[in-house]
Amino acid sequence: MQRTRFDDKLCPIARSVDLVGDWWTPLILRDACAGVRRFEDFQANLSIPRATLTSRLQRLVDAQMLRKEQYQQHPPRHEYRLTRKGAEFYPILAAMFQWGSDWLYPNEDGEPTTPDLRLIDAETGRELHPQVVDRHTGEPIDVRRTRLAVRE
Amino acid sequence: MQRTRFDDKLCPIARSVDLVGDWWTPLILRDACAGVRRFEDFQANLSIPRATLTSRLQRLVDAQMLRKEQYQQHPPRHEYRLTRKGAEFYPILAAMFQWGSDWLYPNEDGEPTTPDLRLIDAETGRELHPQVVDRHTGEPIDVRRTRLAVRE
Repeated sequence: MQRTRFDDKLCPIARSVDLVGDWWTPLILRDACAGVRRFEDFQANLSIPRATLTSRLQRLVDAQMLRKEQYQQHPPRHEYRLTRKGAEFYPILAAMFQWGSDWLYPNEDGEPTTPDLRLIDAETGRELHPQVVDRHTGEPIDVRRTRLAVRE
Repeated sequence: MQRTRFDDKLCPIARSVDLVGDWWTPLILRDACAGVRRFEDFQANLSIPRATLTSRLQRLVDAQMLRKEQYQQHPPRHEYRLTRKGAEFYPILAAMFQWGSDWLYPNEDGEPTTPDLRLIDAETGRELHPQVVDRHTGEPIDVRRTRLAVRE
């Protein structure tokens, strides 16, 4: 399912969505960020059809978010490693983690509950709560006071 | 194209992706966050097939990210307004905006360039640079020191 491409090429959101906006790609990236490198491991983790996984991995390699490296010669075996471009996508997944935690685990009364999975700082063991802020002011990004503008 | 659902229901990233992980939904949300409310305006902005738009809007209403409201009685006309749940998804789009800006506008030599669209603070007019940090420490989220863990 390829959508008609967004008309103007101006918008970085549209370009990002073109790259990762399907059901599998963000989950492949999530697993790659968690250290998964081998085709068989992605396949087992995600229960993804092999042909689909092959095409999504190749797309991420073409996009330079993953790098395909041979780790064994006889027989030849490859693994997929995150590039810097791929690793820098991780904070977006972390922000999705927090939003999903906040909104997608309601109880029967619709009240939020806490999911059983959490994000932790591997060094300190502390739980992390990702939040999107402006780099310069540290203020949280708020839809009510943010807008897109064409550069003058 | 419905993918096989992620096996365990533990992961907030997987739940978020199930909800918004197609080409159109994040762009519909982007436009809703920019103030678009009417079917015809979404349709014109995105050049999206009407049947696809209808189903994606309904999905966002079902997910309580948009609220459908009647704004005219004769003839009846409706508009789609962001709920708090929908509005809180915006920072994820803002983080995608920054990543897309950083990585998806290379010149012919592969060097990054600056896209013509930017995010600005509507009150101050300053350019915004979204970054994902931990709410408590203010430290940027870094894939190398973050991991998922099942709550004890």
